Amino acid sequence: MINGGLGSGVSFDGLWDGLAPIGRHAVTGGYRRYAWTRADQECREWFVDAADRRGLDVETDVNGNLWAWWGDRSVGDALVVGSHLDSVPDGGAYDGPLGVVSAFAAVDIVRSRDLAPNRPIAVAAFSDEEGARFGVACAGSRLLTGVLDADHARSLRDGDGTTMAEAMSAAGHDPSRVGPEPDRLARMGCFVELHVEQGRARPVELGATRPRSDDPHGLVDLDAAVGIASAIWPHGRWRFDFTGRADHAGTTRLEDRDDPMLGYAAAVLAAREAADRNGALATFGKVRVEPNGVNAIPSRVTAWLDARGPDDKRVRALVAELSGLTTRQPGAMPLGALTSRDEPAVSEESWTSGTVFDAPVRNRLSALLGGAPVLPTGAGHDAGILAAAGVPSAMLFVRNPTGISHSPAEHAERDDCLAGVDALARVLEQLA
Amino acid sequence: MINGGLGSGVSFDGLWDGLAPIGRHAVTGGYRRYAWTRADQECREWFVDAADRRGLDVETDVNGNLWAWWGDRSVGDALVVGSHLDSVPDGGAYDGPLGVVSAFAAVDIVRSRDLAPNRPIAVAAFSDEEGARFGVACAGSRLLTGVLDADHARSLRDGDGTTMAEAMSAAGHDPSRVGPEPDRLARMGCFVELHVEQGRARPVELGATRPRSDDPHGLVDLDAAVGIASAIWPHGRWRFDFTGRADHAGTTRLEDRDDPMLGYAAAVLAAREAADRNGALATFGKVRVEPNGVNAIPSRVTAWLDARGPDDKRVRALVAELSGLTTRQPGAMPLGALTSRDEPAVSEESWTSGTVFDAPVRNRLSALLGGAPVLPTGAGHDAGILAAAGVPSAMLFVRNPTGISHSPAEHAERDDCLAGVDALARVLEQLA
Repeated sequence: MINGGLGSGVSFDGLWDGLAPIGRHAVTGGYRRYAWTRADQECREWFVDAADRRGLDVETDVNGNLWAWWGDRSVGDALVVGSHLDSVPDGGAYDGPLGVVSAFAAVDIVRSRDLAPNRPIAVAAFSDEEGARFGVACAGSRLLTGVLDADHARSLRDGDGTTMAEAMSAAGHDPSRVGPEPDRLARMGCFVELHVEQGRARPVELGATRPRSDDPHGLVDLDAAVGIASAIWPHGRWRFDFTGRADHAGTTRLEDRDDPMLGYAAAVLAAREAADRNGALATFGKVRVEPNGVNAIPSRVTAWLDARGPDDKRVRALVAELSGLTTRQPGAMPLGALTSRDEPAVSEESWTSGTVFDAPVRNRLSALLGGAPVLPTGAGHDAGILAAAGVPSAMLFVRNPTGISHSPAEHAERDDCLAGVDALARVLEQLA
Repeated sequence: MINGGLGSGVSFDGLWDGLAPIGRHAVTGGYRRYAWTRADQECREWFVDAADRRGLDVETDVNGNLWAWWGDRSVGDALVVGSHLDSVPDGGAYDGPLGVVSAFAAVDIVRSRDLAPNRPIAVAAFSDEEGARFGVACAGSRLLTGVLDADHARSLRDGDGTTMAEAMSAAGHDPSRVGPEPDRLARMGCFVELHVEQGRARPVELGATRPRSDDPHGLVDLDAAVGIASAIWPHGRWRFDFTGRADHAGTTRLEDRDDPMLGYAAAVLAAREAADRNGALATFGKVRVEPNGVNAIPSRVTAWLDARGPDDKRVRALVAELSGLTTRQPGAMPLGALTSRDEPAVSEESWTSGTVFDAPVRNRLSALLGGAPVLPTGAGHDAGILAAAGVPSAMLFVRNPTGISHSPAEHAERDDCLAGVDALARVLEQLA
């Protein structure tokens, strides 16, 4: 075990190594830690063990979020640090876990200096941040703040038809108690989420009119191990249902077909073009085809659009444009004349407006971490959900040399991770 | 139970009703009878029961094909009638089962007339005709004739990673014995497969240069309950692997992405355009996306192309064109400039050249069924595999009023089905 010149090294490595094997796929090397699965449960056990070893008081709230308390949680004005432990399909090791591991390691540093905080401190791991299983990102913090309706959440289904309520029950969590906790929110004085940097580009600031960033300005280009978040781009998820008519691929004339794959393919290309034109991002990363047979024209293609941009209006305009697409529209789509598709049925599965982080907290962080770049991000986080609910929140980013995330190739250098731990420890010392 | 004025009505209905519930999905109403599954096993049990009730001698060959013998099978020159029992995902009730049910019902008619055949007669149900599970259509007849290599077949995997050998073992069938049976083939004097019509259009004849059929000329337009096959279009399946780089959908600039969904979408539209231009058919009906997460740019999109046409050359040209597509190719693809995809990796999973059915048998059928239209089909069948292997083969089609197939909406009127049984009974009487 290497000690990177910081007292945090041993502590960090021990925490990191304990979490690393959980939910890792043997072939892809990616993580599959989906909410309320066995891997998720093992991550929770790791959290409880880490807290127990430190004598922190562990609490699982009604929405499944984990809290490890140092000090009397009832007095309020708590300083909360943490992130999440779940992953996207075949995700990387850092997105989420780095924030939780760093929070515990930062607590270790503060305690090793025999400092006694003036306010309660908690390490938190929010439940189901990626929404990989039930389709709604930040489900744990959205339920806590009430922006995700409890009944709606309970009824969400995964790809196998299992509801979130059923999945919770199977994992030993009572779904009937899920819902907003205003008292808990009120006792949060401040939330600081440390996260691996995602993307190598510096997105344009919220509301900026420059069509898109001309140059990469990520932490690697800025030669900084740690950065501070200014804002989160507005972002959302939409489900597109393209319906057609199942038929035999070998006997149905092209002109007799109602093939929803054509409408989908046109939408994929149109989304890219519209994102480019609007200085936004649009991605179709998840698709479900019925019946998905080689020799069957599909009856239905369901696809999910992830769209983000520097302001609400641009993202809304992009989605509206794609929702209204029909392959009948002359000139609007490639091969428009060859298909007979009606426009897709589009439903919004989540939406989060642009979030500007609390200026006083951000300024204190800037003062503490002199010279740390301040930059916005296109990725949604629990910190954004809590900020929108009125909790003064901030984020620290740890340099990602390639910018690659949501992939087994996601990486941060150990020295940069330890610099992040050190920064978070300074935040704890100064704010608590 | 309705007797449609033919002695075959009661027999047909009883057989049909016994098979109808097996493998039917409660929600879609479609059939999911995949090779070597529980539903497939139940279909096999139905076959054995139908044969037992008729005192026919049941045999399962080394490749899992079922045979119900009337007469001494060892003398050779057997007249075989039948089809298959498995289905595509959410397939219809008729594709396959109609031929097997009609074969038993036709045997009943012949026997009710106290006729003694001069040659052995068999009702056959070929295994795994649709290839829905392991990707190779007509696996049972291809193994029998040797055009599908036994080792290759055993190693084919389904979507869950189960090999065909494992699936056979789990179903109680010994996979080690799979392989060609030239003696069995040599004892087949003739094979007649009755099948529901697929598509409402009359495809152009093999080798015809007319770009595509201008008018529908299916049995419904020709006002005929039963037709005779002239030929089967060449057809094949190709697997396209589009590889990219998984990344975060919210933080990766458009210009930094390597998104394989764009290459796939472009290929879907290009396939349609190329099929139209070549007077052929091309369909992407099955897709697999990795990791298939809403907020993850895919690392890989795998899609299967089904392509067919009136001659080998046109189908080959179409596939070659699509294989060589790159989104870098200037002008070749929509949005070519915006993506950085290399060309997809393409592998051929099956190929069957055009098949012209045996002229003497076809002429005898035409004489027997005076006025029955003779028409080619774009759909592959076991009869095509056997014909290519030198077994004199023929096909009868039963009118499909909408042409829809490979769908729960697939249908044939009962009177037309009984006309098919009657035609098949006349074939048995005259040829045996």
